[in-house]
Amino acid sequence: MAKDEKKLVEAITSRDVDFAQWYTDVVKKAGLMEYSSMRGCMIYKPLGYALWENIQQELDRRFKETGVENVYLPLFIPESLLEKEKDHVEGFAPEVAWVTHGGENKLQERICVRPTSETMFCDFYKNDIESYRDLPRLYNQWCSVVRWEKETRPFLRTREFLWQEGHTAHATGEDAEERTLLMLKVYGDFVEDFLAIPVIRGKKTDREKFAGAEATYTIESMMYDGKALQSATSHYFGDGFARAFGIQYSDKDNELKYVHQTSWGISTRVIGAIIMVHGDDDGLVLPPAVAPTQVMVIPIQQRKEGILPAAEELKERLGKVCRVKLDDTDKSPGWKFSEQEMRGIPVRVELGPKDLAACQCVLVRRDTREKTIVSLDDVETEVTALLDTIQKDMYDRAKDFMDSHISDAHDYQEFCENINTKPGYIRGMWCGDPACEERIKDETGATSRCMPFDDQERIAETCVCCGKPAKSLVYWGRAY
Amino acid sequence: MAKDEKKLVEAITSRDVDFAQWYTDVVKKAGLMEYSSMRGCMIYKPLGYALWENIQQELDRRFKETGVENVYLPLFIPESLLEKEKDHVEGFAPEVAWVTHGGENKLQERICVRPTSETMFCDFYKNDIESYRDLPRLYNQWCSVVRWEKETRPFLRTREFLWQEGHTAHATGEDAEERTLLMLKVYGDFVEDFLAIPVIRGKKTDREKFAGAEATYTIESMMYDGKALQSATSHYFGDGFARAFGIQYSDKDNELKYVHQTSWGISTRVIGAIIMVHGDDDGLVLPPAVAPTQVMVIPIQQRKEGILPAAEELKERLGKVCRVKLDDTDKSPGWKFSEQEMRGIPVRVELGPKDLAACQCVLVRRDTREKTIVSLDDVETEVTALLDTIQKDMYDRAKDFMDSHISDAHDYQEFCENINTKPGYIRGMWCGDPACEERIKDETGATSRCMPFDDQERIAETCVCCGKPAKSLVYWGRAY
Repeated sequence: MAKDEKKLVEAITSRDVDFAQWYTDVVKKAGLMEYSSMRGCMIYKPLGYALWENIQQELDRRFKETGVENVYLPLFIPESLLEKEKDHVEGFAPEVAWVTHGGENKLQERICVRPTSETMFCDFYKNDIESYRDLPRLYNQWCSVVRWEKETRPFLRTREFLWQEGHTAHATGEDAEERTLLMLKVYGDFVEDFLAIPVIRGKKTDREKFAGAEATYTIESMMYDGKALQSATSHYFGDGFARAFGIQYSDKDNELKYVHQTSWGISTRVIGAIIMVHGDDDGLVLPPAVAPTQVMVIPIQQRKEGILPAAEELKERLGKVCRVKLDDTDKSPGWKFSEQEMRGIPVRVELGPKDLAACQCVLVRRDTREKTIVSLDDVETEVTALLDTIQKDMYDRAKDFMDSHISDAHDYQEFCENINTKPGYIRGMWCGDPACEERIKDETGATSRCMPFDDQERIAETCVCCGKPAKSLVYWGRAY
Repeated sequence: MAKDEKKLVEAITSRDVDFAQWYTDVVKKAGLMEYSSMRGCMIYKPLGYALWENIQQELDRRFKETGVENVYLPLFIPESLLEKEKDHVEGFAPEVAWVTHGGENKLQERICVRPTSETMFCDFYKNDIESYRDLPRLYNQWCSVVRWEKETRPFLRTREFLWQEGHTAHATGEDAEERTLLMLKVYGDFVEDFLAIPVIRGKKTDREKFAGAEATYTIESMMYDGKALQSATSHYFGDGFARAFGIQYSDKDNELKYVHQTSWGISTRVIGAIIMVHGDDDGLVLPPAVAPTQVMVIPIQQRKEGILPAAEELKERLGKVCRVKLDDTDKSPGWKFSEQEMRGIPVRVELGPKDLAACQCVLVRRDTREKTIVSLDDVETEVTALLDTIQKDMYDRAKDFMDSHISDAHDYQEFCENINTKPGYIRGMWCGDPACEERIKDETGATSRCMPFDDQERIAETCVCCGKPAKSLVYWGRAY
């Protein structure tokens, strides 16, 4: 191994030694993000941004299939507007950035940089919606938002981050609830199919719900260290915002009624999930569906006659079935392998003089390191099939990992034992009292992740914290 | 004409009566933009945003073909960073929005909301670039920027607007200049091919160039009222920013050198150009290439048996060759026609009982109102051909309009006459003294738009303003 190659590989801390450091190493070494002179804000480098572009494109398509249209609302919100819905402003005001001057002049009213845009959408809908014919309104925007966090980490928590926020208005509460759950389904399917990350779908407790919402639904994914990452949320507002902002429509009988609303969002946090679910000690491992480059062709002994043209031709052919690049730089093959692995490119194709003579090439999976020798005649078919297999295997492995990191706790002692010995989620019954959530959080660091939709079985009759009669099954866990 | 239809049509001021009012009417009635409670900022409604999405997608593809990669840098710039390049801060500081508080706390240093990101890119490149192997860096970002303008108009001038800004770093000045001109070519081709808007390509005078640039190149388009709209610019910085920020690389001989840089941008202003170049008294007229909906199928007597299913089938068939919608609402056909015209949809397909019986349909061009009856058997071919024809014709008409609105002035008297009697550009020689530009601007409201690349002929030997020996031919005009 040449000196340079060693340098690249050595720089990564093992994820079993120090997971947090491993994460930072991968983010930097794979070229995903970089710190900036603006404290708490990050630079999305080409690979990090390309991941977001692929996520955006796929989700946007899925949103539009359900009738959603894109719009763009102002970055700034006047303070008086933010204050209109009481719970909402209490939730967000402490962490917003305030603009007080425009050019040389002090502003008459402070304006904040949007932390989320419910208030702007409400202000817009107030005039935009007149009759039942205007409903539903299914609008979404792709933008950045700002929350003045004290502690920040790449992708997971930064003062500015990229996301989408959908905001819809409906004639009835039933329509709005249906949309809330539909969008949660879109998110869940997307994260599982496209990012190969299994999720738990459920409802947040009141303590964990969005400021101003009647109900918040969530998808929760599990990282390699067993911690949860809330990966997308969908909120049902009832007519709370509509009453605060006066958003009314005249129905078929010409009667004035309040609309019912939803909002739903997913952010660049999910890139953090991709890293922490799939990555390994050699760096990033990207699911083929989201990988900006799916295949890297690496020529061996590329100075030998015929190798580079053959590698170029191979790249051209593969370009018809996948996103492929050719590394024809003058670095050594070993260095190229390390780079391709660090950047998580799902498949490497090696082509050297012996391969060429035998009319074959070597496919190497990033996820399992498995090597297959395939005939050059079948390479398009083989690579396509391999990418599908990798996508499926990555999901299955992540699902097995998650399933094997869920334990049940029947009482508080078992809960405390599990939280310290069994990384992952704990299933435990809950009485419905926020005081129990509070105590669990204070004493163990775990929060209620959600009340799951799919498996609301009664694993005990009493609350895992206080022992009083239980109401719901809750997934608990430490979280990002 | 039913009462409702009248209402829609009447609401538009004629563009020959009051062009400014016509513009505002079209923006609102076509559903492009809406005013918001945040003064000076606008809401991009679905049609306005969909235009931007199409522009973005096409330009992004063209950028990437030249090797550009997308990134995303922070929205905020610390004041100390903005101040590093003297000309640049003088140009922008008077019109930036200042953030002074994060949550409850006063910030130690003011930060501004980016008016443009040269300073952030420089700060990033300073660490990101080490050796000649890292060059060129060809980065771009799609984002919004903020300039605290006093007077605002939809798309043309708003406090926040959407754009892209490319920022590149090169080993030599020649490489950087080549890139500056390449990007101007990308913009010019895009605006002409895709938006069907002819442009004049040229170089800005020093007075009109970008704050901090050595040279600014521009494409200028001409609106229906004869005024110019600067539609995209590309800047060459030399090593000015590199010296201010200390961006150095080691070349092949291990010698430290400063990089040479460029930046280039296009914004949602061009949507204003689409409106003002192509629109008419019935509303928007969209070039097919950029139109979110290219064809609207409108059934006639849709309650008659067989009409709606046939219209639906027609839409499905057309969906394979273009972006098509079916208006099957219960509005009258006349109302549907008005809406389709107002929203600028290039082709309307009418299908009624008589058409169906004759196995035909009626194609109506939005731009010329021309009607053609075509066989349903050939409809895909006919519609595809018609869309191509419309795109070409719209460009040709706009080109004829521009060419017929360029006059020459040989002295100041002729200049003043032309500016008041001949809307459009004036070609006039210039001595190179900014004082002449100043005087022309003060006395006539015209500014130097550019020194054209293509037709630097000497139409006179003396400056059109002062009569001293002339250096260059300049296009002059009033501008948005």
